[in-house]
Amino acid sequence: MITVTPGDSSATPNDRRTSVELDRQECERLLAEALVGRIGFNFAGHPVILPVAFRFFEGEIIFRTGKGQTLHGVAADKPVAFEVDKWDAWERKGWSVLVLGTASEIVDYEEFMEAEELNLQLWADSEDQDRWVRIIPNKVTGRRME
Amino acid sequence: MITVTPGDSSATPNDRRTSVELDRQECERLLAEALVGRIGFNFAGHPVILPVAFRFFEGEIIFRTGKGQTLHGVAADKPVAFEVDKWDAWERKGWSVLVLGTASEIVDYEEFMEAEELNLQLWADSEDQDRWVRIIPNKVTGRRME
Repeated sequence: MITVTPGDSSATPNDRRTSVELDRQECERLLAEALVGRIGFNFAGHPVILPVAFRFFEGEIIFRTGKGQTLHGVAADKPVAFEVDKWDAWERKGWSVLVLGTASEIVDYEEFMEAEELNLQLWADSEDQDRWVRIIPNKVTGRRME
Repeated sequence: MITVTPGDSSATPNDRRTSVELDRQECERLLAEALVGRIGFNFAGHPVILPVAFRFFEGEIIFRTGKGQTLHGVAADKPVAFEVDKWDAWERKGWSVLVLGTASEIVDYEEFMEAEELNLQLWADSEDQDRWVRIIPNKVTGRRME
């Protein structure tokens, strides 16, 4: 089990005096509002972060990819991190949500059709983006800094 | 060597038709302008992403942490990812820069004092944030989507 210590400064930009831990409900609300997040995974043994357009749907993070692409390779029941945040550097406030989970490809027909209906085509509707990946969260944590 | 294929959709939010690869100079300019980035690393064998206030100084990513904190643990010549991005979901445009490198603590006195002079106290000047970590980039890539 991975535990990011409450109050651990690294959960927010280098501060731990004014940060507030967010509960699961608030984390999920922020995930539901976000449009772009970042997925962290190991690629050839090295940590990598890639941004991805996504939807938070029925408790899962859903995004598109294409066969053979880097993010398709992640979808093999591998552990991943998923992060969304918003910072206002001048106001010194913001929030972040971190999801630790497992990524897998959506292969069930009904679930695949549900994903299609999310209409996740914010950036493009490229025809080769025909695979869907879900991240099932194991742990969801978040912080707000004010 | 890790190669993120040019044109790989996963380097941008799910699109590969309208993205432009950024050269090293442009990536470094964007790093220099950013105030908050995200560090990706393995913690207890699991990928994790944490936001961090930083400065890009003399070709390195510099941030503060405290002894015993999660990000201090990263600073042991471990491979890390570092990402900055900016997205406008409604305009469907934005950019991201990904740094792959190695994190280590700054222990040299002169370098430590240089880091102190960066005045990286955007979010707080907590007294226990007295350690400096650098990421030396091995590979810097970026994309712009328009």
